[in-house]
Amino acid sequence: MAFRYTHARPALTVDCVVFGFDDADLKVLLIERGIKPFKGEWALPGGFVQEDETLDAAAKRELEEEAGLRGVFLEQLYTFGAVDRDPRERIVSVAYFALVKLADHATRAATDAADAQWFPVAKPPPLAFDHPAIFQTALARLRGKLRWQPVGFELLPEKFTLSQLQQLYEAVLGTGLDKRNFRKKVLGFDLLTALDETRQAGRSRPAQLFRFNRSRYNRLVESGLHFEL
Amino acid sequence: MAFRYTHARPALTVDCVVFGFDDADLKVLLIERGIKPFKGEWALPGGFVQEDETLDAAAKRELEEEAGLRGVFLEQLYTFGAVDRDPRERIVSVAYFALVKLADHATRAATDAADAQWFPVAKPPPLAFDHPAIFQTALARLRGKLRWQPVGFELLPEKFTLSQLQQLYEAVLGTGLDKRNFRKKVLGFDLLTALDETRQAGRSRPAQLFRFNRSRYNRLVESGLHFEL
Repeated sequence: MAFRYTHARPALTVDCVVFGFDDADLKVLLIERGIKPFKGEWALPGGFVQEDETLDAAAKRELEEEAGLRGVFLEQLYTFGAVDRDPRERIVSVAYFALVKLADHATRAATDAADAQWFPVAKPPPLAFDHPAIFQTALARLRGKLRWQPVGFELLPEKFTLSQLQQLYEAVLGTGLDKRNFRKKVLGFDLLTALDETRQAGRSRPAQLFRFNRSRYNRLVESGLHFEL
Repeated sequence: MAFRYTHARPALTVDCVVFGFDDADLKVLLIERGIKPFKGEWALPGGFVQEDETLDAAAKRELEEEAGLRGVFLEQLYTFGAVDRDPRERIVSVAYFALVKLADHATRAATDAADAQWFPVAKPPPLAFDHPAIFQTALARLRGKLRWQPVGFELLPEKFTLSQLQQLYEAVLGTGLDKRNFRKKVLGFDLLTALDETRQAGRSRPAQLFRFNRSRYNRLVESGLHFEL
């Protein structure tokens, strides 16, 4: 079947920059391309938007099909429309960025797909198409958001220690943070619920576990709070 | 001539939310539609992306063609892709937002087009398509950006008084601001160059004119400044 139009139309795709955090490194999920162009090279998961689905739905579907990911934080990032960004024909791509709790068993299993792999954000492999630019745009957005919005909790397990939280911030921002200042700031917002549980990592002494209190955050935002870390 | 594809493709458009400030009100530029659907109703300026132009170029072209605007601040906003957002067929639209110095004679003349008109943001007319949602998204983005980035200066004349600056902030944020606090904050950033000129508005006494020092702002940002008003 063929579709005919009086004017040329670009094809429309979605591409997803998926970030995960494994207690030490910020990582990005990449797919090894099985077809030309750029066959055998790494690229962001993504694909064509179908006739009857929204852009968000297309991004969700591609994440599930290509990486087995469901129910992750997903947000539209930017639309990339350089005329020659794909060597085959004109393709405009709506980029998304996604945040995944790598610590969850379910999402860890999803990366078992032979052609999907997590790479440290600090050392990504060469990427196909204009995916380096999409990746950098997503990284900048994540860094910006982390400081002003509580998106970091999307990358941590439900229960986490303050050290894990600080390691996440350090990994994303790419800089060391003063432990005392960080804890004071974090606890000052009164947005973490201290749990009756501890976590022991390696040979260090057990550390208290916390949970992010999202409903409390929403109430504080409504009352004019400015979150900043 | 016809273009044939094996899969259905949405048409691709750009739509622009253009804000201006006239010393009292924040305004938005709208176009009266001359064709169906929504003929005779108001809509955002925009149109189809051409085969050989980037998305940014399409937005710039539409602003010039439909509103005579050139050289304005323009930034991609969000891409709207609901399946039924246009009654004719599927059209995905990349939305932009633009900021215009209404005080400049050049841009004021541009609005002489019979079908283009500036409306107060507080009282827009009913809008065609999903343009109400696009407009609200742009307004939220402008409000957010105004506090953290010096985009407000894109809406003011090159030389402005502190009262004009405060009126702009009040108009965009939709709230009154304390004059002393506002001036203290603004001048505290040391980003305004005081000029040897004054401006007299109405019967009030002449007020000093200032200019935004962008090169100084860029240097301060590089050195880690966080602008916040």
